[in-house]
Amino acid sequence: MHETVSTVTARPNSAYAALEARFRRLYLVRDATGVLQWDMAAVMPDGGAATRGDQLATLKVVAHDMLTAPELGDLIARADGETDLDDWQRANLREMKREWRHATALPADLVERLSQAVSSCEMVWRPARPKNDFKGLLPSLRQVLDLVREVAAIKSAKFGVGRYDALLSEYEPGGSSAEIDRLFDELAAFLPEFTARVLDKQAQGPAVLPLHGSFPAERQRSLATKLMGAIGFDFAHGRLDTSHHPFCGGVPDDVRITTRWDEGDFASGLMGVLHETGHAMYERGLPPRWRYQPVGQARGMGLHESQSLLVEMQACRSRPFVEYLAPLAAAAFGAAGPAWSADNLYRLYTRVERGLIRVDADEVTYPSHVILRYRLEKALIEGRMELPDLPTAWNAGMKELIGVVPPDDKDGCLQDIHWPGGAWGYFPTYTLGAMTAAQLFDAAAGADAAIPDGIRRGDFAPLMAWLRANVHGKGSLLSTRDLLVAATGKPLDPEIFKRHLRRRYLDG
Amino acid sequence: MHETVSTVTARPNSAYAALEARFRRLYLVRDATGVLQWDMAAVMPDGGAATRGDQLATLKVVAHDMLTAPELGDLIARADGETDLDDWQRANLREMKREWRHATALPADLVERLSQAVSSCEMVWRPARPKNDFKGLLPSLRQVLDLVREVAAIKSAKFGVGRYDALLSEYEPGGSSAEIDRLFDELAAFLPEFTARVLDKQAQGPAVLPLHGSFPAERQRSLATKLMGAIGFDFAHGRLDTSHHPFCGGVPDDVRITTRWDEGDFASGLMGVLHETGHAMYERGLPPRWRYQPVGQARGMGLHESQSLLVEMQACRSRPFVEYLAPLAAAAFGAAGPAWSADNLYRLYTRVERGLIRVDADEVTYPSHVILRYRLEKALIEGRMELPDLPTAWNAGMKELIGVVPPDDKDGCLQDIHWPGGAWGYFPTYTLGAMTAAQLFDAAAGADAAIPDGIRRGDFAPLMAWLRANVHGKGSLLSTRDLLVAATGKPLDPEIFKRHLRRRYLDG
Repeated sequence: MHETVSTVTARPNSAYAALEARFRRLYLVRDATGVLQWDMAAVMPDGGAATRGDQLATLKVVAHDMLTAPELGDLIARADGETDLDDWQRANLREMKREWRHATALPADLVERLSQAVSSCEMVWRPARPKNDFKGLLPSLRQVLDLVREVAAIKSAKFGVGRYDALLSEYEPGGSSAEIDRLFDELAAFLPEFTARVLDKQAQGPAVLPLHGSFPAERQRSLATKLMGAIGFDFAHGRLDTSHHPFCGGVPDDVRITTRWDEGDFASGLMGVLHETGHAMYERGLPPRWRYQPVGQARGMGLHESQSLLVEMQACRSRPFVEYLAPLAAAAFGAAGPAWSADNLYRLYTRVERGLIRVDADEVTYPSHVILRYRLEKALIEGRMELPDLPTAWNAGMKELIGVVPPDDKDGCLQDIHWPGGAWGYFPTYTLGAMTAAQLFDAAAGADAAIPDGIRRGDFAPLMAWLRANVHGKGSLLSTRDLLVAATGKPLDPEIFKRHLRRRYLDG
Repeated sequence: MHETVSTVTARPNSAYAALEARFRRLYLVRDATGVLQWDMAAVMPDGGAATRGDQLATLKVVAHDMLTAPELGDLIARADGETDLDDWQRANLREMKREWRHATALPADLVERLSQAVSSCEMVWRPARPKNDFKGLLPSLRQVLDLVREVAAIKSAKFGVGRYDALLSEYEPGGSSAEIDRLFDELAAFLPEFTARVLDKQAQGPAVLPLHGSFPAERQRSLATKLMGAIGFDFAHGRLDTSHHPFCGGVPDDVRITTRWDEGDFASGLMGVLHETGHAMYERGLPPRWRYQPVGQARGMGLHESQSLLVEMQACRSRPFVEYLAPLAAAAFGAAGPAWSADNLYRLYTRVERGLIRVDADEVTYPSHVILRYRLEKALIEGRMELPDLPTAWNAGMKELIGVVPPDDKDGCLQDIHWPGGAWGYFPTYTLGAMTAAQLFDAAAGADAAIPDGIRRGDFAPLMAWLRANVHGKGSLLSTRDLLVAATGKPLDPEIFKRHLRRRYLDG
């Protein structure tokens, strides 16, 4: 469908054209890295780990050197003065500048120390979590946090934004914690009472019948492949494989998604594949003309998550889609009976529970897990809280937001790899994504009646056409906010997400 | 068994240490390339081809830039004057210099023009071969040859060697066409009459019984995996996959071999796997201390081919190994009867025929195919022959050396990709490898009686220990000639290869 266009249409010999040539090379090195990372997770034998680590570290250095080459600042300054750039070129230059500022903001030794601290903290975290050993993690986590605070302070001063926002902007360009505070406060005021009402309603409704049986991986794969095809995943430009943690990797012209097959539980595995397919469709739909340029990349982690949640949560857990899915699933496993009815499958796919673990959470309680983490990491980065106080604050937040208290840190503040892994400022993108998904889906369904009609029949072509025109094909041309306004008529409005939850969980 | 040691023990701040750091980075980029090439052949969806081509081209440019950086010549000159290098470091420096000289010998535009001519000539060759269209290939092959001649002339002048040797040295460092002429003339004088005697003997002996049946890929794979394990292939550091053309790729700590499974013919597929396993054992046995340095790489293509042929031809087609193999093969396919006896399998695996196609040739006639190509490409490079005369010269050479004349160019001078692909000077390494394999195997068996005893029982550990000590673990420390003298007591002696052929095909 798409062709990779690699010709540079910019005026030859302009500073801008020189920048395009340099970024083309940079992105191709990063794309190579993406394939090697997929290989590591999906097919690499264990003994290849050390040498793969060396390869990836080297390509990272090569890419970093390209982005921090001394001539780059001068080229950017000169390109800024070139008046013959079109909108895409100007947006591309803006994104080049953004990347360059992030890459050159920090002294090399700080980047190096943080990278080492993160590697060693992840190694400590892996056994510390099952051993419930927060104290054991504390020294290396403190090292990471100290360095992250240093990064935040430097970038805050250089970029003229707050310290949290300086970190957030790496994952969510243009993101603002003042805005997130407002959105999340509104959700936090809504969710606890809403959750209680949903749980009441569920308790009064029919019980969910469990899906008994064994679900051979090959049959799960065959069903998943069929549904991926229905969504529009092009197997001439991508693969589905297995890995320990599901992810979407590879490159836009060769998107590699992975999943796990749990032979005792097909339901969660399938939704996992559909989630990753949403990510994959975004990557695949990015503008081919700008394949190896910053403006051709996905806009940010919030919008990326919106695309996976739009497919998984908005479309595939909807009642009409579950009607389509139920007979396919029963046939795939040669199953029958009331547990395999659309009614029961829908109850299963929209089940709400007060749980301890974010990755297992349902659509209603998930935002509360995120709000808790966002508030805690913001306090930690801004120095309003210290790490020894984390377990107590975590448990208090769980009680307030979700209504359960973890019996231990293993299922509490030790559960996520993000902080040991150095990904501070990442968490809010999950819930920004959930709200964005609701808003985009609402607009899409309103724009074209063929979209909800299609989903009812397993035909995603109308939905994907709308997403390609309004989201995927835009790359990083617009800010996330402007993209959302152009696509839906307004900036992010949590009321649409709340309305979606009310309709699905109370009115449905 | 091995660990990747990446510390540099050279004196810090020395020019030599700076070179090690640079070559480490270069080799890691090349290793990344190796994994991407495996991916392309083994698992990549078709639609990923264009973007993969862009990635590989970029990594090639990145590596080339590293090797031609202006500072490198100066660092090499300074390191040459450093007196505290040990033997490995000095050999490493010698190999660095060799690579640098090859990389900097040619003007960038010639490299570029050759690369483009090769790409387009390969595209013309693919359909031209089945269409038997030598005339159609001629213009683009002439373009390639003209540029190859230019390369040969420049390197010849700069390196002070003949034009053919200048090309040969890229595949066979230190190789000499004067020496090859002598070796190949001796073989060419021996083989035609020898082949006639072998064919006579075969005609008088029992007929080879064909192996009827269908051989499911999974069972072939299971048998191949078992035998790879017996040879010592470590699946924690490697994989076996399928691809259109069998090859050995990946990197020493993660060796990826591929094969094709022909469900109508298990015999050739199995020997293909054992051949690639020989290549893999060489890569895996290279000295880990020098993993990312020139001295840590395989010595040359001749020695590489010797390792695959040592496993396949010397060990696995030997009568004692076939005794071990026969019951395993019968059991793998649930087969029985006289066709599956060791006698018959051995006759099958040592069958000699006057054939037209090099890649299908047996051990006895293969060298004649190579000698023909070597003589022709040498004449073409040295300007003693022109391309329009190739078909006639090819057919005359076939008649003289093998005793058959191709009915058309498709099964004649169009059959190999090497010349369209720019690999001029490569062909002799196949037969240098075959002779070297015979000589190394002869020395190994003489050095340790456990080696032939082990092969009889499917135990390759003694053989691999000897190869690791005498060949694999040496990397590029010694010249091929010195390595052979150290391991076997003398330089390459075609008499040993001839003796092997006599014993197997006339006396056996």
